[in-house]
Amino acid sequence: MAERRSRPRGEARRELILDVALKSFAENGFHGASIAEIAALCGLSQPGLLHHFPTKAALLAAVLEYRDRIDAARLEWSDRPRGLEALRRLARLVEHNTHVPGLVQLFTVVTGEAVTAGHPANAWATARYRVLESDLAQALSHGITDGTIRPDTDTRALARQIFAMMDGLQLQWLLDPESADMSGLFRSYIDAVIASIATGE
Amino acid sequence: MAERRSRPRGEARRELILDVALKSFAENGFHGASIAEIAALCGLSQPGLLHHFPTKAALLAAVLEYRDRIDAARLEWSDRPRGLEALRRLARLVEHNTHVPGLVQLFTVVTGEAVTAGHPANAWATARYRVLESDLAQALSHGITDGTIRPDTDTRALARQIFAMMDGLQLQWLLDPESADMSGLFRSYIDAVIASIATGE
Repeated sequence: MAERRSRPRGEARRELILDVALKSFAENGFHGASIAEIAALCGLSQPGLLHHFPTKAALLAAVLEYRDRIDAARLEWSDRPRGLEALRRLARLVEHNTHVPGLVQLFTVVTGEAVTAGHPANAWATARYRVLESDLAQALSHGITDGTIRPDTDTRALARQIFAMMDGLQLQWLLDPESADMSGLFRSYIDAVIASIATGE
Repeated sequence: MAERRSRPRGEARRELILDVALKSFAENGFHGASIAEIAALCGLSQPGLLHHFPTKAALLAAVLEYRDRIDAARLEWSDRPRGLEALRRLARLVEHNTHVPGLVQLFTVVTGEAVTAGHPANAWATARYRVLESDLAQALSHGITDGTIRPDTDTRALARQIFAMMDGLQLQWLLDPESADMSGLFRSYIDAVIASIATGE
């Protein structure tokens, strides 16, 4: 960290590489992306790029971490929304996602190919869903505790379903935004979920 | 067709190529799959393979069409299930899919990368969701007509959501079958949908 702070130009270059690489992985996937092309787009030699990120897999890992930070900030997950508010927050996130198709595409392309054996994002994607499930289930459990959510709600199953709906709608929206209104379809699903689990308290 | 019938060995070879290619596209995606490797696994020279399928894109198109035929037969969609029965049929399809992870993986990997510009499966994937939406919406409309489904049901939106849930759960299940019980999670979602749209007639 000390090194970064004392070298703002190095930090700026690192961010530039992450931005360019994010776009390239979103457009080409991991296997299709080219380190040589990413370096050229950044005005760097290939060794110059590899100085910052030693392998293509390391670059992808850094891009995914970078995207997660952007999302976490957007979701304001750090203030730990509880109960039904967590669901409303997710609906707003999906609405926001309609304005950042590049980020959505990165996620869809990379998690799709991450199911293959030996893919460098396999562990990241697997861990990510476990954390999402656990965080959302915990938020919903708070709603059970404070009486706003029905106590017979299967919070972990519902969390898995909610993220599945989000991902599936992203895919359809990226392919065909005219036919698949991602934001409206997700919101109507969340409204139905809320109607079915809310106690009305 | 006449040519095929008179050359059963050619037909058998074609099926072998499709089986091998399906596995390769599922494991490597379109960009990562190698025509040379697929040919070798079939015991063919590369020109021998290209005699049957002139390009890698043509081979992928044939594999996707082959997979759709398998699915349509499995779903028995040809007898046009109507109303809530169509939803129960989909839940059984997802249960069946837990036994054919290779087919599920082909679909997840190829549709994920198909969102990228110029991908050979882009038009296939886009058209596929439109047909799925239209067929399921029509089946649900029959349920409105015969009084088993509430008339205020947005059949097209619900169809989009149901296929989104199916796809999102496939992704989580492929990554982490211990944590994501695809079949159980899909069935509980479908049960909730039925509870919310059925009139009880």
